Amino acid sequence: MQNFTFHNTTKIIFGQDTIGQLGQEAKPYGRKALFIYGQGAIKRNGVYDQAVASLKAAGIEIVEFPGVRANPVLSHTRDGIALAKSQNIDLVVAVGGGSVIDEAKAVCAGACTDTDVWQFYTRESAPAKALPLIAVLTVAATGTEMNGGTVIMNEATKEKYGCGYPLLAPKVSILDPTTTFTVGPEYTAYAAVDAATHLLESYFTSTDPNTLLQDRYVEGIVRTIMDVTETMLKSPDNYAARATFMWAATLAWNSIAPCGVGPWSTPNHLIGHSMSALFDTPHGASLSISLSGWLPWYAEQSEANARKLEQFGKEVIGFTWRDTQRAVEETISSLRAWFRRIKSPTRLAGINVDDAGLVQVAENVEMCNVHWGLPDYTKDRVIRILKKCI
Amino acid sequence: MQNFTFHNTTKIIFGQDTIGQLGQEAKPYGRKALFIYGQGAIKRNGVYDQAVASLKAAGIEIVEFPGVRANPVLSHTRDGIALAKSQNIDLVVAVGGGSVIDEAKAVCAGACTDTDVWQFYTRESAPAKALPLIAVLTVAATGTEMNGGTVIMNEATKEKYGCGYPLLAPKVSILDPTTTFTVGPEYTAYAAVDAATHLLESYFTSTDPNTLLQDRYVEGIVRTIMDVTETMLKSPDNYAARATFMWAATLAWNSIAPCGVGPWSTPNHLIGHSMSALFDTPHGASLSISLSGWLPWYAEQSEANARKLEQFGKEVIGFTWRDTQRAVEETISSLRAWFRRIKSPTRLAGINVDDAGLVQVAENVEMCNVHWGLPDYTKDRVIRILKKCI
Repeated sequence: MQNFTFHNTTKIIFGQDTIGQLGQEAKPYGRKALFIYGQGAIKRNGVYDQAVASLKAAGIEIVEFPGVRANPVLSHTRDGIALAKSQNIDLVVAVGGGSVIDEAKAVCAGACTDTDVWQFYTRESAPAKALPLIAVLTVAATGTEMNGGTVIMNEATKEKYGCGYPLLAPKVSILDPTTTFTVGPEYTAYAAVDAATHLLESYFTSTDPNTLLQDRYVEGIVRTIMDVTETMLKSPDNYAARATFMWAATLAWNSIAPCGVGPWSTPNHLIGHSMSALFDTPHGASLSISLSGWLPWYAEQSEANARKLEQFGKEVIGFTWRDTQRAVEETISSLRAWFRRIKSPTRLAGINVDDAGLVQVAENVEMCNVHWGLPDYTKDRVIRILKKCI
Repeated sequence: MQNFTFHNTTKIIFGQDTIGQLGQEAKPYGRKALFIYGQGAIKRNGVYDQAVASLKAAGIEIVEFPGVRANPVLSHTRDGIALAKSQNIDLVVAVGGGSVIDEAKAVCAGACTDTDVWQFYTRESAPAKALPLIAVLTVAATGTEMNGGTVIMNEATKEKYGCGYPLLAPKVSILDPTTTFTVGPEYTAYAAVDAATHLLESYFTSTDPNTLLQDRYVEGIVRTIMDVTETMLKSPDNYAARATFMWAATLAWNSIAPCGVGPWSTPNHLIGHSMSALFDTPHGASLSISLSGWLPWYAEQSEANARKLEQFGKEVIGFTWRDTQRAVEETISSLRAWFRRIKSPTRLAGINVDDAGLVQVAENVEMCNVHWGLPDYTKDRVIRILKKCI
């Protein structure tokens, strides 16, 4: 077990009928809020009305900034920053899924500086201050509601980067599982893949042999996610399943899982982001494709890797095999079968990407790999990985 | 799954050679610190020297207040409050185990008011402000390093109460697992029982049927605690085992486990505290005795309770039986066997308490039960429970 620092100050308000608390929670942070949301889904499910009413009742003036895309883009982010600056905004209220909250974090940072916000993503610069952010989450998946992480895409250069700064973490996040009842089957499945992948990145890439506690944490949450996803798909308004998944997705990416595991990395997010940058692939879909190729490649790299996959099979899928090789194959095949059952793709063909596209993804990864701290993920390696999922 | 609010702002600095960060972490909170510690163990293992050197290097003036007992008492707490007031203390630095940090929290609250501190424990009053607290933990067990909870004993009235206020949570807690190498076998075992019991209280007393995620969280940590305790006993300086246990004990009682489980209670802490108040029983020892009687009593109360014990047996102990009754018996017997292996008592006779003492404990519980929100724990019920562990 390795040294670590853990400090996560986000206040989580979780449960039914909690959006009415938004105004009171936002009030200590100022009187004029930039109200960021996406393509209007929140107007159809009533969340917009609840949020606006609560803010107004608390005497908070609202400047609306809608239009965040499912893969949020730099140009729209810059528009938000310009608006926040011109309107002398005190705080930002983000209402939506991970994309809305991620772009809101960029606006919070960009509004307090003359530095171009993209430099925070390329690590050329780091934000020194940021507007306070209050979030209402309506799609459980990315965990952004309880961390300082944010991912946006520079659509001009086809670069999609994530970065994380503690001062960008929401002050308060309100999570009402009923708001996720209207998330359709595709994004429900992608959300499950995303949350599970967050846990699996540190689980599989850490090389510390003493991560018993962290392993149990990850295995327990992944098992839970796999247990409830099909229930959500069959019964979109099953409160227990939606609530369990929503809190699971938060716990998956709020920095607890990797505490003490030492160096770890996010190769599947690197590869997945390149797919999204090139083909606008939904984030979760890109991850189930990447994992389907990356896991067999990973297991080939060392005996320790193979044994870790065997452990995952035993603890999460729930079976044991006498020989590790067989366990690895069955584990990967069970995970792929789960992806297929929930209809998240396991092959590039599933998102209409051919061999030429595969090479483009690999080239994009090679362009982005240094920003991810993964220079070993060369074009050649990524081609080898992705060929395993054709 | 039930509504909840989660907000835990304590910064955790975890790992070897981290005590040297104490001064820098304390500095933002003031220039004059009350330095609270226990019976002097920290002078023997070098922690005192490291902590003092770090504080001095940061320019922080120190007023020492040693002498906290293993079950901290009200009279000593009041002395600490008087000293903090007379010396115009800015912040409190607690260096020690759970007892030292718990008493330090009482001093932090008491130093800012003319209200008698005991009223915060009897719930006659609540603290409105408190001095900032920085902790260096040297005995992993109670989880106090990452919550607002504190337990002290009024030795005059034989009442031992816990209470919790978010403003009493440490601003920063430094956890260096090497400081726990010198914790002897008895307290290592009691610590394991304490941390496990923290998780089991909400696990067994919640009646919400949809706690899949919370159950996996608890089961994973309890399994880990059971896995590493015997290693710690055999090899007190096994870093991986000590570190795993230290972080497990923090995660066991930092408010994550009960998030969403709805109403729950701490009957074993209620009963255990009465044993400690009357017979100065170490906290963990009192809990293994209480659980040994409470679990069979609990299983008899409903079919749902019995099935929860069966689930615990399957997920934590790792076995399955065709019939629930048998599973319950084997689970309790396995847990008792674990207590015996690590030498934590399972019977009142193990702490030299006879039948008359049993009745005294039950009477003390009945005196204290309202403060614990457990009025159903009458003298008669507690006698029935404790007779199961004779």
